Amino acid sequence: MNPVCLVLGAGAGIGGTVGKRFAKEGYHAVLCRRSDEEGLNALVSDIQASSGEASGVLLNAVEDDTLEQLVANTEREVGPIEVVVFNLGAQIGDRRLQDTSRKAFELCWRLATFSLFRLASAVCPLMEQRGKGTLLVTSATAAVRGNAGQHAHAAAMGGRRMLCQSLNAEFSPKGIHVAHVLIDGAVDAPDTLGKMLGPDQFQALREQRGMEHDGLILPEKVADTYLHLAQQHRSTWTHEMDLRSFGDHPWWNH
Amino acid sequence: MNPVCLVLGAGAGIGGTVGKRFAKEGYHAVLCRRSDEEGLNALVSDIQASSGEASGVLLNAVEDDTLEQLVANTEREVGPIEVVVFNLGAQIGDRRLQDTSRKAFELCWRLATFSLFRLASAVCPLMEQRGKGTLLVTSATAAVRGNAGQHAHAAAMGGRRMLCQSLNAEFSPKGIHVAHVLIDGAVDAPDTLGKMLGPDQFQALREQRGMEHDGLILPEKVADTYLHLAQQHRSTWTHEMDLRSFGDHPWWNH
Amino acid sequence: MNPVCLVLGAGAGIGGTVGKRFAKEGYHAVLCRRSDEEGLNALVSDIQASSGEASGVLLNAVEDDTLEQLVANTEREVGPIEVVVFNLGAQIGDRRLQDTSRKAFELCWRLATFSLFRLASAVCPLMEQRGKGTLLVTSATAAVRGNAGQHAHAAAMGGRRMLCQSLNAEFSPKGIHVAHVLIDGAVDAPDTLGKMLGPDQFQALREQRGMEHDGLILPEKVADTYLHLAQQHRSTWTHEMDLRSFGDHPWWNH
Amino acid sequence: MNPVCLVLGAGAGIGGTVGKRFAKEGYHAVLCRRSDEEGLNALVSDIQASSGEASGVLLNAVEDDTLEQLVANTEREVGPIEVVVFNLGAQIGDRRLQDTSRKAFELCWRLATFSLFRLASAVCPLMEQRGKGTLLVTSATAAVRGNAGQHAHAAAMGGRRMLCQSLNAEFSPKGIHVAHVLIDGAVDAPDTLGKMLGPDQFQALREQRGMEHDGLILPEKVADTYLHLAQQHRSTWTHEMDLRSFGDHPWWNH
Repeated sequence: MNPVCLVLGAGAGIGGTVGKRFAKEGYHAVLCRRSDEEGLNALVSDIQASSGEASGVLLNAVEDDTLEQLVANTEREVGPIEVVVFNLGAQIGDRRLQDTSRKAFELCWRLATFSLFRLASAVCPLMEQRGKGTLLVTSATAAVRGNAGQHAHAAAMGGRRMLCQSLNAEFSPKGIHVAHVLIDGAVDAPDTLGKMLGPDQFQALREQRGMEHDGLILPEKVADTYLHLAQQHRSTWTHEMDLRSFGDHPWWNH
Repeated sequence: MNPVCLVLGAGAGIGGTVGKRFAKEGYHAVLCRRSDEEGLNALVSDIQASSGEASGVLLNAVEDDTLEQLVANTEREVGPIEVVVFNLGAQIGDRRLQDTSRKAFELCWRLATFSLFRLASAVCPLMEQRGKGTLLVTSATAAVRGNAGQHAHAAAMGGRRMLCQSLNAEFSPKGIHVAHVLIDGAVDAPDTLGKMLGPDQFQALREQRGMEHDGLILPEKVADTYLHLAQQHRSTWTHEMDLRSFGDHPWWNH
Repeated sequence: MNPVCLVLGAGAGIGGTVGKRFAKEGYHAVLCRRSDEEGLNALVSDIQASSGEASGVLLNAVEDDTLEQLVANTEREVGPIEVVVFNLGAQIGDRRLQDTSRKAFELCWRLATFSLFRLASAVCPLMEQRGKGTLLVTSATAAVRGNAGQHAHAAAMGGRRMLCQSLNAEFSPKGIHVAHVLIDGAVDAPDTLGKMLGPDQFQALREQRGMEHDGLILPEKVADTYLHLAQQHRSTWTHEMDLRSFGDHPWWNH
Repeated sequence: MNPVCLVLGAGAGIGGTVGKRFAKEGYHAVLCRRSDEEGLNALVSDIQASSGEASGVLLNAVEDDTLEQLVANTEREVGPIEVVVFNLGAQIGDRRLQDTSRKAFELCWRLATFSLFRLASAVCPLMEQRGKGTLLVTSATAAVRGNAGQHAHAAAMGGRRMLCQSLNAEFSPKGIHVAHVLIDGAVDAPDTLGKMLGPDQFQALREQRGMEHDGLILPEKVADTYLHLAQQHRSTWTHEMDLRSFGDHPWWNH
């Protein structure tokens, strides 16, 4: 039986690509996303066509008990979850404070912070019993610095990072690897950046950033690093790291 | 008419003491807390007995519209809010992940993060119209590092800090001073630390930390610094600072 | 006998202004700078004309034994040093790596890092015997993030900050207050920024930043904060804080 | 011709092990260390015995022109340097301020900060001409927080980190990957930790940390991560990451 890699937020960018990569390495990829059943099925078929194992789950992470049931179902029907890729985003675009509704602020938190807490609450006790497990958390620049218009996003991502440090403090000594990966730049992802910009502007950005598009973070290269993190020996674990394109300014520069 | 200093979380520790101090400096202190009407009335009387101006409000910050109405009422009945001291804590004690309920996790966020967002949403537009205002936010070590058992608290406080940076980015250029004050140590506060430890253990700690209790952070000294922050000229504002007793280890040391 | 405030780097910006302020509060200000004897004498006379106490010392901090002798002479001839304002800058302007000579890199370190180590080595044992003392260290954005062209400056200032944390860890429990003050923006200082820009460009910047020049950090307002730090009660000390004008972006924003 | 991996500080811990690993991956490893010619020769022979390419250089990095000549000689005699592993340590053990001589403080800086500057000054222009190169810098907890007794070490390592950020800001857009790797825990390294503790105490620590010694950071596992960093695609580079054993507290916890 293949070990299971559970991916939350398995769109056409980092999430789906990482899931594909883990499937290639022998994991059963359980790919979860909120919408676009067609896209999800295509991703699953794609993996299976390359002799990989995958299943797809459409679910709304912020609804009650969805994540809790997802973990229970996966463990029962697919197998023990060895790796979780927590890739739910909560970027709602820049909004001034007065344009940020209480509802939007809360939704960001439910997606970025509370969902991780619920997922971890469901899966960490199981990993603890098995004495091992990996929790790879995609994070954003907003986790380490607030910015104009980022009230909801930064508050939620800042919470995510502190939660990761707290999870790490409790579970690292029990053999569970929690890694917070700061994606500090634009990702070449049609489902998120592409939709935010629209097709023309997205294509223009890709061309402007270089023929190989390597001025944008490439999801398949992110997958290399996620796989490396999942393979790190427990004597030598990374808890926090950043990723950005060579041509981008790190968040601390201007 | 005195300028107004609105204090959220005006117990017998930092909040009430800072309120008293601003009243002494000529502000009308509007002191808000969730419970202990008697204690609140005593604090108000105490200020008035020294010729200061104060009013007390009992309110539950996490309930719908309480903070929004508080701001509206204060502006209408007392006067323009010049300084907000946001002093709501969300320390629920160390709890392992499996002992941290979804409810507790959410409550921490409602207290530490969402309340600040709601308060800022209500008061910042008014301050913006007036071209000035000060928002002093008491924060905790958990805002900058997660720790074992601090899942809920650290996630909420990390969100608080990133929200402060986002508020600062939007409102500092508009003349509103947002300061995030990291209280990095035990405070000589009977209402919080005292209740957490119980009277005997609290007294023992005070004695162990020195005859003048200066091994604990003294609320009246915190008030000195809060007042200084509120008086800083806008050419020279502090956004982030820490406070701890000389005898305490900073959070980054061990 | 007045307590002594020793200022390293007492030019017409932060250093001299802070010295003046401490003199006004009853300290004997010992003002040290490398050059401009005339300016130094004028500053001393200015303080004395307001019934303050001051003396001036011309010295090159990077030369052997200058700082060590300064501390010894001051203690013997003026009195116990209660406050040190360490205000030596090491900004050499942006230079590409290949334009940064080994000599320039080393000089930055001698000014920004090694001088602080030497000064602290001379004065902290004396403060330790007296069970009190304050070391206020002016620092720069380069202490917390490197930037293009800042190889020498950032390396030196990063060292300064880590040294401050190390000094704090050893000496705070012994009653010595070490504060690292991050000056995160342009200072309205004719001796440093003024010389770097030249008189016309400096004046243009001042005008562009507002009639009251409050878009630049004002040295006299910095002095308010330095004085506050020196007066903080040891129960409630700040080790790190930032200062910038309301109109400036914090270093973490863009 | 094999690409060249230049290792500074190639002892029996991280440096030598990383060099071995790069040799195995097809690099010519140029291994440099200050002393123990025998150990160095053994390491070179060991690599060659496994059909790898390696050469050894004994040199004192803090002496004038050693690093500059090393780069020139390597480029001329071995080939273009593609990867630098900068692994010079500067840990002198905990010393109180008064036990930290000016000489020791300066030596730490020469090793940890200035040597990196000199090495980068020599090699970055060559890498820039070739449009690529990798600079992997081993760093220590002291780069991000000062601690009691760490005056010299923290000042030097803090400088190292800020220098890495400055190098990254200038050279990342030119295709040169600079990574700062925070080794945040004890390494299972006989040459450094072993010598510091002595053979008996070192063995006791290894046994206490687990039969597989995985409570200590294992150099061969560090090599996995260094290799991964060197292989990261330039669209997706890590500039800062940490490494520690699962059983160790991160520096921000206690």
